[in-house]
Amino acid sequence: MPAPTEFLEYVDRNASGFINRLKEAVEIKSVSSDVSRRPDVIKMGEWLEKQLQALGVTTKQVDLGKHEMSGHTLQLPPAILGKIGEDKSKKTVLIYGHYDVQPAKLSDGWNQEPFEFVEKDGLLLGRGSTDDKGPIMGWINVLEAHQKLGKPLPVNLKFVFEGMEEYGSEGLDELVIREAQPGGWIHGVDCVCISDNYWLNTRTPALTYGLRGIDYYGITITGPGQDLHSGLFGRTVHEPMTDLIKLMGSLVDVNGGIKVPGVEELVPPPTEEELQLYHKMDYETADIEAAAGGPVALSQNKIDVLMGRMRYPSLSLHGIEGAFSDPGAKTVIPAKVTGKFSIRLVPPQTPAQVEPLVRAYVEQQFAALNSRNKMTFGSLHSGSPWVADINHWNFRAAHKAVKAVWGIDPDYTREGGSIPVTLTFAESLGVNVLLLPMGRADDGAHSTNEKLDRSNYIEGTKMLGAYLYEVAAESSA
Amino acid sequence: MPAPTEFLEYVDRNASGFINRLKEAVEIKSVSSDVSRRPDVIKMGEWLEKQLQALGVTTKQVDLGKHEMSGHTLQLPPAILGKIGEDKSKKTVLIYGHYDVQPAKLSDGWNQEPFEFVEKDGLLLGRGSTDDKGPIMGWINVLEAHQKLGKPLPVNLKFVFEGMEEYGSEGLDELVIREAQPGGWIHGVDCVCISDNYWLNTRTPALTYGLRGIDYYGITITGPGQDLHSGLFGRTVHEPMTDLIKLMGSLVDVNGGIKVPGVEELVPPPTEEELQLYHKMDYETADIEAAAGGPVALSQNKIDVLMGRMRYPSLSLHGIEGAFSDPGAKTVIPAKVTGKFSIRLVPPQTPAQVEPLVRAYVEQQFAALNSRNKMTFGSLHSGSPWVADINHWNFRAAHKAVKAVWGIDPDYTREGGSIPVTLTFAESLGVNVLLLPMGRADDGAHSTNEKLDRSNYIEGTKMLGAYLYEVAAESSA
Ligand SMILES: [Zn+2]
Ligand SMILES: [Zn+2]
Ligand SMILES: [Zn+2]
Ligand SMILES: [Zn+2]
Repeated sequence: MPAPTEFLEYVDRNASGFINRLKEAVEIKSVSSDVSRRPDVIKMGEWLEKQLQALGVTTKQVDLGKHEMSGHTLQLPPAILGKIGEDKSKKTVLIYGHYDVQPAKLSDGWNQEPFEFVEKDGLLLGRGSTDDKGPIMGWINVLEAHQKLGKPLPVNLKFVFEGMEEYGSEGLDELVIREAQPGGWIHGVDCVCISDNYWLNTRTPALTYGLRGIDYYGITITGPGQDLHSGLFGRTVHEPMTDLIKLMGSLVDVNGGIKVPGVEELVPPPTEEELQLYHKMDYETADIEAAAGGPVALSQNKIDVLMGRMRYPSLSLHGIEGAFSDPGAKTVIPAKVTGKFSIRLVPPQTPAQVEPLVRAYVEQQFAALNSRNKMTFGSLHSGSPWVADINHWNFRAAHKAVKAVWGIDPDYTREGGSIPVTLTFAESLGVNVLLLPMGRADDGAHSTNEKLDRSNYIEGTKMLGAYLYEVAAESSA
Repeated sequence: MPAPTEFLEYVDRNASGFINRLKEAVEIKSVSSDVSRRPDVIKMGEWLEKQLQALGVTTKQVDLGKHEMSGHTLQLPPAILGKIGEDKSKKTVLIYGHYDVQPAKLSDGWNQEPFEFVEKDGLLLGRGSTDDKGPIMGWINVLEAHQKLGKPLPVNLKFVFEGMEEYGSEGLDELVIREAQPGGWIHGVDCVCISDNYWLNTRTPALTYGLRGIDYYGITITGPGQDLHSGLFGRTVHEPMTDLIKLMGSLVDVNGGIKVPGVEELVPPPTEEELQLYHKMDYETADIEAAAGGPVALSQNKIDVLMGRMRYPSLSLHGIEGAFSDPGAKTVIPAKVTGKFSIRLVPPQTPAQVEPLVRAYVEQQFAALNSRNKMTFGSLHSGSPWVADINHWNFRAAHKAVKAVWGIDPDYTREGGSIPVTLTFAESLGVNVLLLPMGRADDGAHSTNEKLDRSNYIEGTKMLGAYLYEVAAESSA
């Protein structure tokens, strides 16, 4: 069931009002990682709740308690829960979004004050325009259209909006798990839709069905009691840096292959059906090199590059804590150094499976060095990967909505990074989760001059509405 | 010719006056690396010049010009040149010292205000007490004794005192080279004596005849145009850190062996005579582990440890600029990283010989990686090693002076670090240079609670005087 024409026309007719709604949202400086902006994050949550209420949504603010940040004890911004419609004959869709944003200042290289919304050359510019205020406003626009047209929504909706996504989603997992239980706010929903990622390129809409997990590790080497001078001690003692660099060098090869035995082996090869998805993707290796800012792709084969990002684990060496890291030439032998690296995990890998493999390998490599220094190994944080069934009606509905609004078939993508709440929704609710991006690959979500194309905002609003109609029309079998 | 008894008695009788001289010197905060202390460094130079003049030394302040430090253009502290005696029948000894000191503040962990001189439990405590104000005061004490006793000095003396040693001795090399030429202040001296290092332990006086040189290198890897997120880019691009860690890991083995072909091979094995020097040294591997603060010696054989520090090259990995180095878990793929390492050089190695070997090796290792990143290699600074002939009369004289004053034979040591002006004196004057330390291994020269033992100061003053008499008595053949 395509979206009714009057809905689509309403969106076009009210575009300037919708853009004004986004302007209001962008101009609230809801930076969750900035102590001094915490009142603005809370203000943004309240603004959002009022928008929902005005459009007939029943809401609830959930106090997530306090937390410590940069030496301050701060009130967490509330989660805003919402619901509209209780028709048992309709499906219920759960919508997630976050109303906090990344920090931004003019001096980072913005062409404008980042919290002054600007519309220019078909772009809607300002911090949060695409991540994640644009998509949230898109849902509100859909509500407004139905209210003003006097049309009932084709599905029941539940909302979970949070204000701490850019700072680790503190408190959210517990809330989701609690409210997913019988009697809870989101218990019994039929599917989940999250609009908080991006197309693979600037041309083709995407449906996203997978995220990599992560396990972030530290290897610490100690030995000397204090930093030593290399003139006095060079070639007399076991130097922690020498040991650490050997260990870090044993983890990954130059082409990205993970050298820890057993880690790659956990991942099955792609099926023919999956390979076809990569074949079809609107992508070239030039795209990855444009995004990386240099001709450094590991392969000239687009399928290798796409699978490297989406469906294989990766191991990155991030840096060393405790070593000399300033400009200049200090002749120090650092006494205690911690090498940081992480592995992006893919299904069916889990941190619980992978960490013992890494630990055993690092311990064995260190033992082989015969160093008299001490080594400790630990995980700093971790999260599991996620993958959804793209043959589920939730994806079919989204595919039809994309095709109807944009006129082309979407790419089926997996993201290389993590959105941890995705997995929490999937596991606690036991339903299909869809990532339905509104913005493009070049939106600059965590960077300078963040934008959302006007067309992505307006057509994206239509797409979100159309998706609800297609969900309603799908058989739940 | 031993020092006359009346000189030795004068020193004992006037010990408290000598200690007061050191107190005055320590309490001038002549920190050369601190912009706000520059006037104190200049004041210290003037104080020193007046002391010399009062004892009959002809002096000259040399303006070394200006320099840039921490964004300020500063006047360099003057070099203070001095001379006393022009008797053509006597030898002429050149004395070097530096009147500037390292920074120090109570909060670093001092038990006292570092610039308030304290005498306690046989120790003379305060910044600069041993490095290098104690030794300079020792020479002045010798001058005072001879003036007050009405005795002529056994040799002619020339002095070069500088105020920038702790910040790279700016301007000094040019001065030394200029003044070493015919007609220059120090032209024609017969030998050089520098008291600016330490005994190998806390028990045995030392004569030092060698210093390692250094070549400090940076390997820079670039590729991506900006730092990348490991979720989005992990396993799609050549990561600069992966390449750099491989290169750094190929430089040195865990036991300190340098893997760059040709570098170790430049160094001849020790002669039997040299091995005997290490055998005789009053040293145990427990000493190096006590100094390092941990049980991490590369060998349990004291000769291996001593030769590792004194007569073999060493390669230390200092750190990485541009990588993640803070606490926490940042999932960054750094776009540009520079690995810092240095090789301590020993004769006959020179930076000019060693650098091309290192460069060729690093370039070859990088080529073997087949990475699409870019690598650049460079030397940040360098200095040649130095070794003196211990059979020269200058060392024989010092040996006799030590034996006469301390009652035991000195260790013959080489230092693992560098005092670059040593080589400049040796090369520009073409004479034997002796390092004659006054303080002990545990003086804490660049650390907290710097001290000079009272006995080292008083007996050390006798030793410096006795050395001049032994020089006078030696045949110059
Ligand atoms: Zn987001
Ligand atoms: Zn974000
Ligand atoms: Zn010194
Ligand atoms: Zn010093």
